[in-house]
Amino acid sequence: MTELTPKGVRDFLPEEKILRDKIIETLKYAFELYGYNPLETPALERYEILASKYGGGAEILKETFSLTDQGKRKLGLRYDLTVPFARVIAMNPNLKMPFKRYQIDRVWRDGPIKLGRYREFWQADCDVVGAKGMLAEAELLSLADFIFKKFNFETEIRVNNRKLLNEIISFCGAKKENSDNIILSLDKLEKIGEEGVRKELAEKGIDETIIKKLMKTISVKGDNEKILAELELLLGKTEGIAELREVTRLCDKFKTKVKIVPTLARGLAYYTGTVFEVYLAKIPVASSIAAGGRFDKMIGLFLGREDDYPAVGISFGVDVIADAINLSKKTEPRKSVVDAYVVPIGDVLDKAIPLLQALRSEGIRADIDLLDRGISKNLNFANSYGIRYVIFLGQNEVDSKMLKLRDMEKGEEKLLKFEEIVKKLK
Amino acid sequence: MTELTPKGVRDFLPEEKILRDKIIETLKYAFELYGYNPLETPALERYEILASKYGGGAEILKETFSLTDQGKRKLGLRYDLTVPFARVIAMNPNLKMPFKRYQIDRVWRDGPIKLGRYREFWQADCDVVGAKGMLAEAELLSLADFIFKKFNFETEIRVNNRKLLNEIISFCGAKKENSDNIILSLDKLEKIGEEGVRKELAEKGIDETIIKKLMKTISVKGDNEKILAELELLLGKTEGIAELREVTRLCDKFKTKVKIVPTLARGLAYYTGTVFEVYLAKIPVASSIAAGGRFDKMIGLFLGREDDYPAVGISFGVDVIADAINLSKKTEPRKSVVDAYVVPIGDVLDKAIPLLQALRSEGIRADIDLLDRGISKNLNFANSYGIRYVIFLGQNEVDSKMLKLRDMEKGEEKLLKFEEIVKKLK
Repeated sequence: MTELTPKGVRDFLPEEKILRDKIIETLKYAFELYGYNPLETPALERYEILASKYGGGAEILKETFSLTDQGKRKLGLRYDLTVPFARVIAMNPNLKMPFKRYQIDRVWRDGPIKLGRYREFWQADCDVVGAKGMLAEAELLSLADFIFKKFNFETEIRVNNRKLLNEIISFCGAKKENSDNIILSLDKLEKIGEEGVRKELAEKGIDETIIKKLMKTISVKGDNEKILAELELLLGKTEGIAELREVTRLCDKFKTKVKIVPTLARGLAYYTGTVFEVYLAKIPVASSIAAGGRFDKMIGLFLGREDDYPAVGISFGVDVIADAINLSKKTEPRKSVVDAYVVPIGDVLDKAIPLLQALRSEGIRADIDLLDRGISKNLNFANSYGIRYVIFLGQNEVDSKMLKLRDMEKGEEKLLKFEEIVKKLK
Repeated sequence: MTELTPKGVRDFLPEEKILRDKIIETLKYAFELYGYNPLETPALERYEILASKYGGGAEILKETFSLTDQGKRKLGLRYDLTVPFARVIAMNPNLKMPFKRYQIDRVWRDGPIKLGRYREFWQADCDVVGAKGMLAEAELLSLADFIFKKFNFETEIRVNNRKLLNEIISFCGAKKENSDNIILSLDKLEKIGEEGVRKELAEKGIDETIIKKLMKTISVKGDNEKILAELELLLGKTEGIAELREVTRLCDKFKTKVKIVPTLARGLAYYTGTVFEVYLAKIPVASSIAAGGRFDKMIGLFLGREDDYPAVGISFGVDVIADAINLSKKTEPRKSVVDAYVVPIGDVLDKAIPLLQALRSEGIRADIDLLDRGISKNLNFANSYGIRYVIFLGQNEVDSKMLKLRDMEKGEEKLLKFEEIVKKLK
């Protein structure tokens, strides 16, 4: 019956929603631990804000859901959380800098639907505005490391720097105005291979000798220090190399392992310095699991004050994290939050309610048979929701002040006191 | 600069968002404690689902934001969480009944903007589908009681029953087909007073003697048992009285105080039995703070299977709860989640980072100066965000293995060991 919902959107039944809530809770915990503050912006933005030339660009605007309100104003559903963040900065000039914020929320894109691509999906963004130094990015990379360790993921954190890429491109003899175009092709290296990139660059009119020199320069291999040393030998002391060296040095202090990948470019035009992507080492998901970089110009241009708002951010993919957890599935997903299900037998509801409430007041998530069903129907019900414990209360139990606890996993039943049950379930 | 956002939508800066997150977390905790499972449905629904005649009705449809996707399908932003819930039940015929779910999420209505009314706002709904008995509603009322005690609100929980209202209306001699219309007028009793209701009923063509008898019957006063006894004397043993008696009896077992209010009607047409509203006793907010009732027909009609899906639910207003907390303001709102702010003095960043990370690994939400500022600028910064503790680390502190902790509230500074700081801050 999928025709009852729009294309590219999803319902999350409890089984999936419990997992997604857990992911969001973990992200929220980590973001706050790292001093990021929560911000909420509305789903609806004015269309002209989304269409700002310093926003997501023409490609993304084609995929923007637009609508009008009763006052005939043109609105749109946000396609990311960065443009609304820039708008909030513009509207609140008294915010003290640096301002660290996170937002975990839905975004919409009316684009083609592919594996892992939806029209309504969740992003989890952390950004700092107002801080120029490399400490801000090192802290973000440490945050990513912390989060993926919490999820028990093995990851590879790749970093590079746009300034360095521009320096390399210039060193290889390409014109400055071709730099962005060349970077866009380099970004495809993993997707289309070295030959593909050479071909694409040639088609873009880049000279064969430049392409050759470029491919040789960026294919420098080795550990971080070796890569930086070799590039320094070629380029001399440059800003890009200095920033990248500082980021890796600070990451070291955070005990966060990062790998310099000189071919890493990131597709978006607005990055100005450090760029990074986090990949899963062992789980075959479709894309990077977090990514971001420094965008020192975007917010300032948006506000008409070019140099005042240096910014760096990271975006975590809630959907791809959920996919990865499902693919690595070590434990069965929970179908219900319920810890204990109370089954009154016979006319004991008046005793069962205080029992139910006593369990809840101990923090045990408890449910009760609402339909006055028999034992086997109730066991089937508890089983179908994967509820681990069933507590029976009949006249015998009322008289003896004991309760019958059934462990559905082990298939065992025991007569226990209330306190013993609480101890076991907590 | 409000012209940068659509009318009737809001940003929540950290100061407000921290409070709202706390409210949502409390609701989520309570809902799960009571055995409700989380469900997520998309913001976008097919327009024809929202327009279903068993949905929210013509009034609400006028306020529905509509849009089209690239496939020219007509979509809408949901105006409530109940219609999407009915759709999920329709699409998942294998769900075991009863199914208890909650959803805390945004809804949109393109209506007039008044005090406390927005075009994008949050609802927190708990519903049970598949349970006919009064136990389901008693549990919901207990849940409301539990939640508002958590918020330290004094409340009055009012209950009534639509069957009883219909029985009274019939007892007074009104025609059955006028019943819904009369109920809609009775619902305005608090707003327009007894005279207003009498006038409105007369305008609707209800006979003067019927109005007189009706107003006398529903104005019966006293405690719950007295009200039920008096009504029983007039009406005899009716289904409405029996249900209301059972609800209050079960609420008693839950230790939840409820008050029968025979004039309580609730505006929506789809209610079929128990109806309830929760009011704050001492804080002057614009409306009820939670409300709901039994709607045994709606989901079944929606699915074309009239009697199979009895349902009862409650909706909590996240915005009105936030307003009430702000009005009763006992504590200053937090402007930042940060517990401790680390200020390196001099060239000690390499020592400050491990300190920062050690605090975080103890669960302390910690931040660090990203701008290499001086002491007084850092103190101003911490002060502007209301951060309670600042930790200074200079060469002296590194050498002596002590840290200087400043309590911003008390204006005190102390030299302490790391472990002592952790103990104090936790």
